[in-house]
Amino acid sequence: MTYRDALAAAADRVQACLLEELQGYAAQPVIEAMRYAVGGGKGLRGFLVLESAALHEIPQEQAIWAAAAIEAVHAYSLVHDDLPAMDDDSLRRGQLTVHVKWDDATAILAGDALQTLAFELLSRPTCSRDAEVRVDLVASMAKAAGAQGMVLGQAQDIAAETATAPYTLEQITELQANKTGALIRWSAEAGARLAKADPAPLTRYATALGLAFQIADDILDVEGDAATAGKALRKDADAGKATFVSLLGLEGAKSRARALVEEAEEALSAYGARAESLRQTARFVIAREK
Amino acid sequence: MTYRDALAAAADRVQACLLEELQGYAAQPVIEAMRYAVGGGKGLRGFLVLESAALHEIPQEQAIWAAAAIEAVHAYSLVHDDLPAMDDDSLRRGQLTVHVKWDDATAILAGDALQTLAFELLSRPTCSRDAEVRVDLVASMAKAAGAQGMVLGQAQDIAAETATAPYTLEQITELQANKTGALIRWSAEAGARLAKADPAPLTRYATALGLAFQIADDILDVEGDAATAGKALRKDADAGKATFVSLLGLEGAKSRARALVEEAEEALSAYGARAESLRQTARFVIAREK
Repeated sequence: MTYRDALAAAADRVQACLLEELQGYAAQPVIEAMRYAVGGGKGLRGFLVLESAALHEIPQEQAIWAAAAIEAVHAYSLVHDDLPAMDDDSLRRGQLTVHVKWDDATAILAGDALQTLAFELLSRPTCSRDAEVRVDLVASMAKAAGAQGMVLGQAQDIAAETATAPYTLEQITELQANKTGALIRWSAEAGARLAKADPAPLTRYATALGLAFQIADDILDVEGDAATAGKALRKDADAGKATFVSLLGLEGAKSRARALVEEAEEALSAYGARAESLRQTARFVIAREK
Repeated sequence: MTYRDALAAAADRVQACLLEELQGYAAQPVIEAMRYAVGGGKGLRGFLVLESAALHEIPQEQAIWAAAAIEAVHAYSLVHDDLPAMDDDSLRRGQLTVHVKWDDATAILAGDALQTLAFELLSRPTCSRDAEVRVDLVASMAKAAGAQGMVLGQAQDIAAETATAPYTLEQITELQANKTGALIRWSAEAGARLAKADPAPLTRYATALGLAFQIADDILDVEGDAATAGKALRKDADAGKATFVSLLGLEGAKSRARALVEEAEEALSAYGARAESLRQTARFVIAREK
């Protein structure tokens, strides 16, 4: 099985888990919208949870709930991000965005309930029989997703649009560490948290990985194909916003991303060959086409 | 001290707690909007937490975190509810709504982060030293706030607007049990959960209280004064939506609300005189003017 097949298979399993969870819910458009929103992604964050869990000998049938939780948070953030009041996107993962397929109210509520669902999944004994582990996952997820993590990054991103001068490399790096980095770090650390092990090597890995991921996103925004990416591209350049490409140049950005992938791989050295799949993930994030 | 003074004092303490928490956050409009959104409410849900905690001999300095969490969730729901895509209200608690004072994007993000904050507060040792208690509070809060609780009620409320026939009393009762009832039940049960005691009497109390609260809201919508209420009134009647008043008549609704208050008071009989403040709360919800 190739790496891409393994990633796709994991994404399918995590998605099936979320769909099964939503099976017993009421027949309402908001529930249909939630089911729709968790489909079709790369599943990178869930995969990081499963792989970091495997590294700590946590069985996949247990780790899948933390993976489902982070994918639910990620899906919520995309549904709200795509709203007309935010990025106003009509295409996501090659499909119509939730507010286009339903309406803004349904998208707001579906996003809200997907966030709630994430915390519900983490709080259940299926996630871990140890209440201390569950509450640690809840606490760290809240930190990563809230106004000192992802939402702060989104707010910084909005502020960039009306800033008097384009953001500096330092500001963009901080913004992205919050906006996309925080959830990626949580995902990679989750396996260590599930095993009550030290997450520090995974934090170093994920910090480099998250930044490489975002630089690759900026490169994709310039070089990518919208049909393959499944979403609108070249929006940042059109909006005159600073990106890693505008700040470093295309070649500079590529070389920085490669250096970060090496940094991410090195952070895993203590795990030896067992961390090969996480190393492949680092190489994948800068080679992906969507 | 009168009951209203006690309620106002508790609301001030819970609000101060949330403002102190947000003190160390970044200087961003979204954080200012969060601070703004937690201010000015009656604080009924936080008060229920504090009183049910006192009934179980949980110190107020501990219970205040669960009270702050439920007020954060309530504030998030109001910020999103007031958005143009939802109820489109420009006045709330006598002040401009968040999306009017800032913009829709800031309101969406502030609401999102207030929900996250609630789970963060519940997950901290300040809320309870017992990890099992914290994770039980998280699990029950998620159930109450999500797509099988409050968000389901909001979705049912939206569906009512385009339903072919006005909702029946049974449908309206179910809708309200979800939309406003779920958080009120969580609030009243929280003290028992903090003490690992049986929440059943408080559940019976809060179920009757929540319904009385909503019937009183419908009466207020017809009889109330917008300036005193601090929000727009008569929206339901104008939208042709079924309410407890349209279904039961004004006198019928008032008599049903009084019967529910008696039912709520009776559910507390086992607690004796110690539950007097919760009994006063039941009487207050149908006597309030906002």
